[in-house]
Amino acid sequence: MKDINFKTVFNDIFIELQPLENKGVAASYIPELAKIDPDKLGIHLVHVDKGNFYQGDSQERFSIQSISKVFSLTLAMRIIGSELWSRVGVEPSGTAFNSLIQLEVENGIPRNPFINAGAIVICDVLMSYLDNPKVDLLNFVRKIANNQNLQYNEKVAESEKLTSDRNKALIYLMRDFGNIHNDVDEVLDLYFYLCSIEMNCCELAHSFMFLVTGGVDLTSGEMIVNPSQAKRINAVMQLCGFYDEAGEFAFKVGLPGKSGVGGGIVALHPGKYAVAVWSPRLNKKGNSYMGMKVLELLTTKMEDSIF
Amino acid sequence: MKDINFKTVFNDIFIELQPLENKGVAASYIPELAKIDPDKLGIHLVHVDKGNFYQGDSQERFSIQSISKVFSLTLAMRIIGSELWSRVGVEPSGTAFNSLIQLEVENGIPRNPFINAGAIVICDVLMSYLDNPKVDLLNFVRKIANNQNLQYNEKVAESEKLTSDRNKALIYLMRDFGNIHNDVDEVLDLYFYLCSIEMNCCELAHSFMFLVTGGVDLTSGEMIVNPSQAKRINAVMQLCGFYDEAGEFAFKVGLPGKSGVGGGIVALHPGKYAVAVWSPRLNKKGNSYMGMKVLELLTTKMEDSIF
Amino acid sequence: MKDINFKTVFNDIFIELQPLENKGVAASYIPELAKIDPDKLGIHLVHVDKGNFYQGDSQERFSIQSISKVFSLTLAMRIIGSELWSRVGVEPSGTAFNSLIQLEVENGIPRNPFINAGAIVICDVLMSYLDNPKVDLLNFVRKIANNQNLQYNEKVAESEKLTSDRNKALIYLMRDFGNIHNDVDEVLDLYFYLCSIEMNCCELAHSFMFLVTGGVDLTSGEMIVNPSQAKRINAVMQLCGFYDEAGEFAFKVGLPGKSGVGGGIVALHPGKYAVAVWSPRLNKKGNSYMGMKVLELLTTKMEDSIF
Amino acid sequence: MKDINFKTVFNDIFIELQPLENKGVAASYIPELAKIDPDKLGIHLVHVDKGNFYQGDSQERFSIQSISKVFSLTLAMRIIGSELWSRVGVEPSGTAFNSLIQLEVENGIPRNPFINAGAIVICDVLMSYLDNPKVDLLNFVRKIANNQNLQYNEKVAESEKLTSDRNKALIYLMRDFGNIHNDVDEVLDLYFYLCSIEMNCCELAHSFMFLVTGGVDLTSGEMIVNPSQAKRINAVMQLCGFYDEAGEFAFKVGLPGKSGVGGGIVALHPGKYAVAVWSPRLNKKGNSYMGMKVLELLTTKMEDSIF
Repeated sequence: MKDINFKTVFNDIFIELQPLENKGVAASYIPELAKIDPDKLGIHLVHVDKGNFYQGDSQERFSIQSISKVFSLTLAMRIIGSELWSRVGVEPSGTAFNSLIQLEVENGIPRNPFINAGAIVICDVLMSYLDNPKVDLLNFVRKIANNQNLQYNEKVAESEKLTSDRNKALIYLMRDFGNIHNDVDEVLDLYFYLCSIEMNCCELAHSFMFLVTGGVDLTSGEMIVNPSQAKRINAVMQLCGFYDEAGEFAFKVGLPGKSGVGGGIVALHPGKYAVAVWSPRLNKKGNSYMGMKVLELLTTKMEDSIF
Repeated sequence: MKDINFKTVFNDIFIELQPLENKGVAASYIPELAKIDPDKLGIHLVHVDKGNFYQGDSQERFSIQSISKVFSLTLAMRIIGSELWSRVGVEPSGTAFNSLIQLEVENGIPRNPFINAGAIVICDVLMSYLDNPKVDLLNFVRKIANNQNLQYNEKVAESEKLTSDRNKALIYLMRDFGNIHNDVDEVLDLYFYLCSIEMNCCELAHSFMFLVTGGVDLTSGEMIVNPSQAKRINAVMQLCGFYDEAGEFAFKVGLPGKSGVGGGIVALHPGKYAVAVWSPRLNKKGNSYMGMKVLELLTTKMEDSIF
Repeated sequence: MKDINFKTVFNDIFIELQPLENKGVAASYIPELAKIDPDKLGIHLVHVDKGNFYQGDSQERFSIQSISKVFSLTLAMRIIGSELWSRVGVEPSGTAFNSLIQLEVENGIPRNPFINAGAIVICDVLMSYLDNPKVDLLNFVRKIANNQNLQYNEKVAESEKLTSDRNKALIYLMRDFGNIHNDVDEVLDLYFYLCSIEMNCCELAHSFMFLVTGGVDLTSGEMIVNPSQAKRINAVMQLCGFYDEAGEFAFKVGLPGKSGVGGGIVALHPGKYAVAVWSPRLNKKGNSYMGMKVLELLTTKMEDSIF
Repeated sequence: MKDINFKTVFNDIFIELQPLENKGVAASYIPELAKIDPDKLGIHLVHVDKGNFYQGDSQERFSIQSISKVFSLTLAMRIIGSELWSRVGVEPSGTAFNSLIQLEVENGIPRNPFINAGAIVICDVLMSYLDNPKVDLLNFVRKIANNQNLQYNEKVAESEKLTSDRNKALIYLMRDFGNIHNDVDEVLDLYFYLCSIEMNCCELAHSFMFLVTGGVDLTSGEMIVNPSQAKRINAVMQLCGFYDEAGEFAFKVGLPGKSGVGGGIVALHPGKYAVAVWSPRLNKKGNSYMGMKVLELLTTKMEDSIF
């Protein structure tokens, strides 16, 4: 990595992207997402040594959606460790052959913890072990984010339930294969609340720092997961964090990361930094159009990726 | 990475694995592969600073098979650059839905350059640009390996042709979609010769050093590919280098790499080292059973992976 | 058709089958089905001119299960006519690629009214048009069977609900595509009651006579469906009445028909007769092992099929 | 069947269809098919008792294409009888999941003898048993058609070879599964010649009369196949004769039949008549748009189908 001032790099990126058309369409399947200004753009980077760098709408909270599947995975790994991998795989899902097709062929074992089916199984695991799943899960996220202020957006969670037919199909198919152990509606309730967490880029970047440090919370010094688990979470993000665009992201950005349909993307360089970007317009694969561009420019200009 | 003596690590790994049953079956679909002693085990690591470390049958040549698909990809990227990506993708293939099914659904564009279909398309590209494809390709491999001694094994290549029905189905399906431009038999001929290259672990590890150094040949100082291309080849290896076990390899080993049906695996840590292992027995996904174990122990003991 | 005494033919068939092992396993996914003696065997044929012929356990009622999907289809065609075909197709489903996979690929439109998804859509249609769906549907079946005595088996219907995860996955997937208009639980409730109807071979054969006569109820003279509709129902039975064994049944028996997982099969020769057989052991495709054999011998001995 | 004068029915049908737009596009993947006037329309019906009826372009020869797959199937059944069914199935293929996908999943056994893969396997069987496959096959067709005048169109056959990549993919995939026993190019050569046979509607209807009569050649009295085999060929046509529109054809026309990409359709009513129509424009499923309409009107007006 060149010795670069990130602030300058962010400036350059924003200038370079300004003339570019912000393509894609923001998610609008629930009213709360449809209301957001689709042209918001923010970035925040936390470096282990060099501190914080940010630009644009980095202080505005948004729905982190699927990004929080990294938190639920982390919590499930803390609770049952490697037992988890009998319930969900670690392989990329392939693609068009996603969702129910692959799930049926593979007997109700989702390919990885980040596709919907996999994240639902993770919620089922949490339901089995947590006393107050919704409360405990939120507290865990607050803990690793060092932020007692984080909240579910109940409106978002409740809205999701109204368009939940596909997820119901997924969960009933998995229960048919014996891979769901709790009440279907309660599991989905937890899932929708999980996806409704809101953060801004700054909060998001900080909440992923434990994966930069090999599992350690920099503030408290507590070990969130052990170094081997941290590496494995990063590996799963690298392989499966971007729906059917994981290859593209690895190819162009070269960092493990996770995207959400709210337009957020978080990526991280183990040992160095975590970075969160937010821009609501999504490309055809469901990832933030501008977010991908920003991160591609970032690792290109810094000549630094994990590869 | 701990400051560890690799030699000691290798010793430890070999001792640790000794009582373990070497599971799996060596490839035997062609007589040349069936003849090999299935319990061979060798490893060779080249570190940019610390030099060479090896153990076991590291000086015995074997058929590197699909590992050489990294060489053909590299050569194709040198020749036509990013144009290549209109002919072949960079996404993991998914799985069981591999081969012809996905290829038919996705209109003859293979998911990545390492599945058979993708490597065949790469050979078709090489056919279009090289004067003497077989000679030029071998010379390129010799060049990056700094070894004029490397050879195709003609017996292996000719044997492959006798069991080439599946590959013929693939190439004709792709030609039906317009994604093959040269004579089908000539393209397959090049493909089979490519897969017949033989190396030992030492030669193999050295031949991948240009991907450790950001594209530079350490011996000659020549730039084989530019740094961005080197990173991208590594990213594609990480996502697609192990058939339907790429996630497993990323999860357990945490390095980009490529395996071959001859029992070889090469992996590398950008900026640090390349390592080649060889053990002919294959697990159910077609990757070396012991090779995977050795590499998992290696990165575990060294507490070092790219994640 | 030879001028044959059906009674003699039945005798011959039973003698011929006696030494044969009754292969297959009776359905046991709900307790009510598991209780049935798996070696029951009955047959009853009603000929338009020659009257009734029967043998074996033809007077014992059993769960007709999917056979009643012909009744629900008939009722739906009476109510909304050809409009129905925008909601469900008339093509065979193919096979292994059944259920959710095909349904997802084809946007929630089931291939035909006899696969589970299709029968559920038919129930959804009935829900939209009937005042008291469960009562009205049963009354319709009683009417075409000329038998006020027929009943749902509530125990069976309620048991089915306990193993309904796969059907729930199907209905939620279809609702996700907009092809379910009523409350999911109410639609499935109607579906399970539909499948729980019990008849004996005699009652079953009589209830299909309106499809032998071009739509006319022989007792009342009423037109249940018009001749064109009767032909079409027969055509759909021919093409789709035996899961992934429709071709086998057409090939060996050569009559339109419908089977149920309770071991019943009904078949008919337009203009001539309807015949019902019952034997609980099912072959691997889910059709009555002995039932198929009996009908194959019947049309072979009589040298008479629609082909 | 009403006592109707077919000539009058044909007149009525042609008048009724005149104002209708002839939709669809004629096949043009080979020059010989592209040259044909797409608005040709002919029909010829041969009744066992009432003789011949025809209208329109019924005397003009056209490429019968896939219709001749019924002849090759018939010849293969004569030669090896029921052994044939270990090489090819009798089930409808499903659909979109056609071609290579299903073939790969089902281990190289084509679903039925009328999809390309199945017809190619039939040609492979004929190659194994006939002395002069091309000559013997043509002579067999001439024999059942009672017409020494019939010919392959070599131009068509040779043109097909130039666009044969998909069929090559199919045959190599099947050979990979062990389901092709002869030289690939020779098998495909026979297949393309088979599909190049030319007939007019009159010749075509006559050549199918042995399937109306239970296997007997009306002219010579010779038994082409036994009655059981004739019924089975009819059953396979009913279930599989119209690609992914077999259900639609059974539903609307209600007769066993077979279509070809040249715009021909032949259908037959066992015991009564065979009818051939020709109109080159194809609907989206690859069947003659007008041909389907003509036959639907025919069985509707005559109130007569096998159902």
